[in-house]
Amino acid sequence: MNTEQFRVAAKAAIDEIANYHDSVPEHRVVSAVEPGYLRPLLPASAPLDGEPWEAIQSDIQSKILPGITHWSSPGFMAFFPCSSSYPAAIAEMYSNAFNGAHFNWICSPAVTELETIVMDWLAQALGLPECFLSGGPTHGGGVIHGSASEAILTVMVAARDKYINEATAHLPEGEDKEEETWRLRSKLVALGSAGAHSSTKKAAQVLGVRFATVPVSQDNGFSMTGEALTKTLDELRAKGLEPFYLTATLGTTDVCAVDDFASIASALGPRAGKPGEIWVHVDAAYAGAALLLDENKPLAEPMAAFHSFNFNPHKWMLTTFDCSAVWVRHRGHLIAALSIKPPYLRNQYSDNELVTDYRDWQIPLGRRFRSLKLWFVLRSYGIRGLQAHIRNGVSLGESLEEKLVSREDLFSVFTRARFGLVTFRVKGDDGGEEEVNRRTERLYEAVNASGRFYLTSTVVNGHFAIRVCTGTAAVREEHVRGLFELLVETVEKQLKE
Amino acid sequence: MNTEQFRVAAKAAIDEIANYHDSVPEHRVVSAVEPGYLRPLLPASAPLDGEPWEAIQSDIQSKILPGITHWSSPGFMAFFPCSSSYPAAIAEMYSNAFNGAHFNWICSPAVTELETIVMDWLAQALGLPECFLSGGPTHGGGVIHGSASEAILTVMVAARDKYINEATAHLPEGEDKEEETWRLRSKLVALGSAGAHSSTKKAAQVLGVRFATVPVSQDNGFSMTGEALTKTLDELRAKGLEPFYLTATLGTTDVCAVDDFASIASALGPRAGKPGEIWVHVDAAYAGAALLLDENKPLAEPMAAFHSFNFNPHKWMLTTFDCSAVWVRHRGHLIAALSIKPPYLRNQYSDNELVTDYRDWQIPLGRRFRSLKLWFVLRSYGIRGLQAHIRNGVSLGESLEEKLVSREDLFSVFTRARFGLVTFRVKGDDGGEEEVNRRTERLYEAVNASGRFYLTSTVVNGHFAIRVCTGTAAVREEHVRGLFELLVETVEKQLKE
Repeated sequence: MNTEQFRVAAKAAIDEIANYHDSVPEHRVVSAVEPGYLRPLLPASAPLDGEPWEAIQSDIQSKILPGITHWSSPGFMAFFPCSSSYPAAIAEMYSNAFNGAHFNWICSPAVTELETIVMDWLAQALGLPECFLSGGPTHGGGVIHGSASEAILTVMVAARDKYINEATAHLPEGEDKEEETWRLRSKLVALGSAGAHSSTKKAAQVLGVRFATVPVSQDNGFSMTGEALTKTLDELRAKGLEPFYLTATLGTTDVCAVDDFASIASALGPRAGKPGEIWVHVDAAYAGAALLLDENKPLAEPMAAFHSFNFNPHKWMLTTFDCSAVWVRHRGHLIAALSIKPPYLRNQYSDNELVTDYRDWQIPLGRRFRSLKLWFVLRSYGIRGLQAHIRNGVSLGESLEEKLVSREDLFSVFTRARFGLVTFRVKGDDGGEEEVNRRTERLYEAVNASGRFYLTSTVVNGHFAIRVCTGTAAVREEHVRGLFELLVETVEKQLKE
Repeated sequence: MNTEQFRVAAKAAIDEIANYHDSVPEHRVVSAVEPGYLRPLLPASAPLDGEPWEAIQSDIQSKILPGITHWSSPGFMAFFPCSSSYPAAIAEMYSNAFNGAHFNWICSPAVTELETIVMDWLAQALGLPECFLSGGPTHGGGVIHGSASEAILTVMVAARDKYINEATAHLPEGEDKEEETWRLRSKLVALGSAGAHSSTKKAAQVLGVRFATVPVSQDNGFSMTGEALTKTLDELRAKGLEPFYLTATLGTTDVCAVDDFASIASALGPRAGKPGEIWVHVDAAYAGAALLLDENKPLAEPMAAFHSFNFNPHKWMLTTFDCSAVWVRHRGHLIAALSIKPPYLRNQYSDNELVTDYRDWQIPLGRRFRSLKLWFVLRSYGIRGLQAHIRNGVSLGESLEEKLVSREDLFSVFTRARFGLVTFRVKGDDGGEEEVNRRTERLYEAVNASGRFYLTSTVVNGHFAIRVCTGTAAVREEHVRGLFELLVETVEKQLKE
């Protein structure tokens, strides 16, 4: 394909993409294909000779589109949203044009420098404490990862090395120190609340350290408290174990609970800044975007007591997947844990510490130019435009909650609307918990089978609940009303049967 | 930005991108900006109100472009290439339109199914043994990661868990088994040759296991041999350590050496398939693309003795960054090490094992629709078109080598052209090794300062050498000739001074 053919083909693709966006509401939300649908449609091997562009492009409509679940559909209220936008899509086009591996500053200075700047912009817009700014007092800063899972693994590595280094700093180099290091490694425990996303457990599994759960209860809205944390820590330490890392959550995946940051900070206070300190990472993958709203700014203040923070602009902030924003209070801990300097990566700028080499802030070496889409999104919408989008999701969640409450003969709200997430259950008669679980699951399956909406469910402390998330950009009051009517109609029919 | 505005803005961006591609050869290869160039050009914070699109788009030219190093320039002969193509660029546009997190099959069945199919296509095209096919006898298969670093970390996790599980399988569950597990963890050693990419060392650092280097020598063309490996393993085991993982390399970063796979397989043979077996991963990040050529197919055969293999289509196979292809012989080992199943990720398809959930084959949870660009590239070029592209890079490397040999009064070839990579040094007089290093470094710096070409250097066993890689798609004989003339002219001038 030469440049002229590219102009034609790419512009035709733009039209097709624009048409797709406008037609999304007409599609069934979730793809209806059966497992294995695609293999019989494609040849058994790659073609020997190149195919004409028209043949390739037409397969998008005929073979790929049927296998797509439409995350931008106003009926998509499952998981958390994965929101895209036109400005982000155009940014990605430029990013691909400036294609490179970008592991060093010199690989394309703009890639590194824009990332530092927009991550500072974003930290300010969220109201994060200044320790997370690149020019802040503790030499912190932000970096873009691909996913919260990577972010959590990365900070857990830094936390582990920091913990071990500080615990063995008093020992002289030698065999004793090495032995103590290995003894400590075998005792390390990473923690998260029962509501923490599975990525913390997975990171512990990857690193080969223990994982322990801090219980949460419905009385506290499933929020982790300092008290519960202290109890868990005491139990672990009584067994000779070494808790070194904690994920606290702002907006848990199952019910959008917010952990009690103030009491967690108090509980950990006595060891803060000393050997044995526990690294606290705050995972705000979804709900972090809500810190853009002034009314949520107080939630950001306690972060000053913690070590790192992440949220995913690709979830609720219109920044096409993938874009996970991570900030640390001391970048030195990341670099100490992750830096490797072989001769073929050396260059005068890095050697003289004039520049940031983000490869030392992450697991991969190469990096995409992801800051471009964040920059385009922040500028196209402006902070006020983004606030309006977030407020829309928040208030639609509240609207659904109100509707559910209006039919408390049929539904009980399990956790109230927060950050656009409501969870609820179907009312039971006298069949107890099991009957409620069964009825709720039945409703959940029927609504998803309709193809009009896509919801997910969760099980919290044995309670089966339906999750509805109204954060997808296209959701409007009419869709929430439509969902509610379908819920009522379906459950009434099911109760009659 | 509404859909109509997107059509206009995106098409204007297509024109700008097409113009950029055509103008690349006119640019200085490496950006000439000074560290910190961008911050003074941008406001101190994100705008409150959205900006007009024109203001954003025009900043690409005025503020971003000066900070770009042009990886697609015919003068880019540094590192390894990062090759893009128009078909891949269009695929990325569609991928972004079908935006989603795609961690489960049901998130968009096409994303999973196309990946399995094109990874099979690609394995066949490379001539990989059938154990790496998704339908192969050992239940293997391929997955797309973002980078070779992720690939290596991921398989190292699987290797570690497999090693420990097998070594402790004879023990009944209980405290003794747990103690032995932790004892083993403290003794694990991952290995790579002295030429293995730093990502293996980094993965070991991340996992908190020891890393040991197998020495290589110029006599063997810096290729790791079974003999050297055996010696290193014996030394480690004599210290009570437990080697569990090895990265073998097809095309090392510094000199494109190929490890001696046959002798490595023989050396490890006695433990193969038994507890204590060492997992061998073959890192072919750059040179793997050369397996597309029939004459290189014999290099793929010995892979049948190994456990996993990766190469990066984003390096030399025209598949815009990022796309790192990884295959394993037994997918079960990956899934055992990386699977986590919280209730909110469960669904009937995954629960019934009808589908592949690639999230269990990788560190991150979410995934981009990267198979689309691989599919577009394989179909647009066809295998023969890709072979022609790879052959071009290979023969241009040979052409440069010939030219260097023709001036053996000035240059000595350090390692011969292989896979489009040549390394060479400047001849010395009687000043010995130090003089050669100094002269070579001086030439290297002068050529890079010219802005016409971008080369990298390496230091192997104390020898400073200039690396020239001719794999970038735009490189032609005229550029190789131009580089050679500049090298001669510069070194002659420097020798006169």
